[in-house]
Amino acid sequence: MSELTVRPVTGIGDVTPGADLAALIAAAAPWLADGDVVVVTSKVVSKAEGRLVPVPPEPGPERDAARDRAIDAETVRVVARRGPMRIVQTHHGLVLAAAGIDESNVDRSHLVLLPADPDMSAAALRTRIRKRLGVSVAVIVSDTMGRPWRIGQTDVAIGAAGIGTVRDYRGEPDAYGNILDVTQVAVADELAAAADLVKGKAEQVPVAVVRGFRYAPATGGGARALVRTGPEDMFALGTAEARADGLRLAAGLPDDGPLGDADLPPGAVEHALSTVDTKVDVLTASQNRVTLRPGGDPRRPARAGADIHRLRAALAAAGLASTWTDSDDSPFGTITVGMPAS
Amino acid sequence: MSELTVRPVTGIGDVTPGADLAALIAAAAPWLADGDVVVVTSKVVSKAEGRLVPVPPEPGPERDAARDRAIDAETVRVVARRGPMRIVQTHHGLVLAAAGIDESNVDRSHLVLLPADPDMSAAALRTRIRKRLGVSVAVIVSDTMGRPWRIGQTDVAIGAAGIGTVRDYRGEPDAYGNILDVTQVAVADELAAAADLVKGKAEQVPVAVVRGFRYAPATGGGARALVRTGPEDMFALGTAEARADGLRLAAGLPDDGPLGDADLPPGAVEHALSTVDTKVDVLTASQNRVTLRPGGDPRRPARAGADIHRLRAALAAAGLASTWTDSDDSPFGTITVGMPAS
Repeated sequence: MSELTVRPVTGIGDVTPGADLAALIAAAAPWLADGDVVVVTSKVVSKAEGRLVPVPPEPGPERDAARDRAIDAETVRVVARRGPMRIVQTHHGLVLAAAGIDESNVDRSHLVLLPADPDMSAAALRTRIRKRLGVSVAVIVSDTMGRPWRIGQTDVAIGAAGIGTVRDYRGEPDAYGNILDVTQVAVADELAAAADLVKGKAEQVPVAVVRGFRYAPATGGGARALVRTGPEDMFALGTAEARADGLRLAAGLPDDGPLGDADLPPGAVEHALSTVDTKVDVLTASQNRVTLRPGGDPRRPARAGADIHRLRAALAAAGLASTWTDSDDSPFGTITVGMPAS
Repeated sequence: MSELTVRPVTGIGDVTPGADLAALIAAAAPWLADGDVVVVTSKVVSKAEGRLVPVPPEPGPERDAARDRAIDAETVRVVARRGPMRIVQTHHGLVLAAAGIDESNVDRSHLVLLPADPDMSAAALRTRIRKRLGVSVAVIVSDTMGRPWRIGQTDVAIGAAGIGTVRDYRGEPDAYGNILDVTQVAVADELAAAADLVKGKAEQVPVAVVRGFRYAPATGGGARALVRTGPEDMFALGTAEARADGLRLAAGLPDDGPLGDADLPPGAVEHALSTVDTKVDVLTASQNRVTLRPGGDPRRPARAGADIHRLRAALAAAGLASTWTDSDDSPFGTITVGMPAS
């Protein structure tokens, strides 16, 4: 590896809808060279693309309502909410406070949305810079993102063109012959972070150029390839939201849902039962099914029913599925425990 | 802002326990100057400090067990788990896969723990570099960290000395006179990310120097100030873990827990009741209390009891507390709903 430089591009000035951002960058940085990485703040990309929403300039309920509507329109789902603050997944797949909608560095009568397709924005800028200056650069569109577990924000790549956004070390040996089996580095995010160090937030330096970084060619995914959503996302909901989801699951436990055929983990049923203060007897047990007879005071069947539901919630918390066939006489039916149907 | 450079420090070689890391850095980078930021991979700090755990070199259950014990010893709490993978909070407050314990870039007979106190490690390096070279540098100890919602890892600051780790823009005006009210930039993390671009993972370049970044003096918190835990952490548990926690809460709903005095949000009780398929009548209602009479088939009291517990889980999912006094006769007692006691 050799030295790299991170240079701010000054003199771009205010960017207005319809502006030719590539021309502005080319004029302000005529020294751009092959292999440079041009990191552009999403704010100016959005402004050039006219991604502005008019809002009442005065603070108050009307401005707040207009802002809420703008956030709604960019939101695919809410990840977490606390008071008026919403962390949402946008249609880009990004998880951002207020859907990345910003009120800074724009006049008071507008909000700025993120670019509709930041990878396409990056690709267009790259092509137009090449046309203007005859150089092949990579382009990253950056945005400021908060992080769980960390104070403060860092800039990340939300759009990219001409550059492999991930450096994959998996399968490579280190100096000791160990295989580096887990390390994929999000180099596009690191480049965006490096660029932010010279851009600042309030100084109208919306572009920085990283020179000297030897990157892999683009693989086609753009910065979208850095988005982790779906089953691989272990933090798809805030803790409070997921906890409420668990309570809702308990409220909706079906009495006769299907059980799977997989074997029960040894001891799992016993452990789940031990977490609630109710009595049950084991009627039958096999590798993949345990049938229980609820206990409970025969004179208080309603309480026994509540205890049965408690038990089933405890089993569900342990990842176990159950069914309940009720009876109007003590012992109030049977609970059968198995693995969830896949 | 002016240009900055990021330079790899080569020639440090293998670092062994007891090594004088400051001397190695000073010898390899005699060109260090006042104001430089020296970013050191935690791996070599740990090795110099002897933070190594012996493990059987051969893959197998014994090595795995030794690794698990090492992770346990560094873990304060488990945040999320999937198969053999554990994301935990360490005693530093950091949330890291496998507690940041690494098997790469070390011989097969050892694992490398994180430094015990990375801020202190950074401070000691800073002092000793000043003694050797007579220059005042900032020092960042970096580690590689995964991120929710993003593919790949980036380097972040786990230790820092001589540098303000957060650049706080709150309260400052932008060019349009808007107050930048939410932006705190984790500059130490951005510096660690920039440094990683020249360090690489397998190339034994454990140190990089950022020159030209004008940073604020340290405020005393070190990189520890970048750790967000406790009530401010909206992602304290993985989604699956928090969902299971909600199910456990349902299993443990106390019949007679305390209710708070705060007013109920309008419509919240009705909405929660509408999410479960059971019948209830409102007996009394006030601003801060609603008393319900369970419905249910009087001939099937156990099922009515289960339905009562379902209702209470649905109320809890909506953030509402409830009590239940049971009765052995239909309608099986009363449910009272209020806000949770604070």
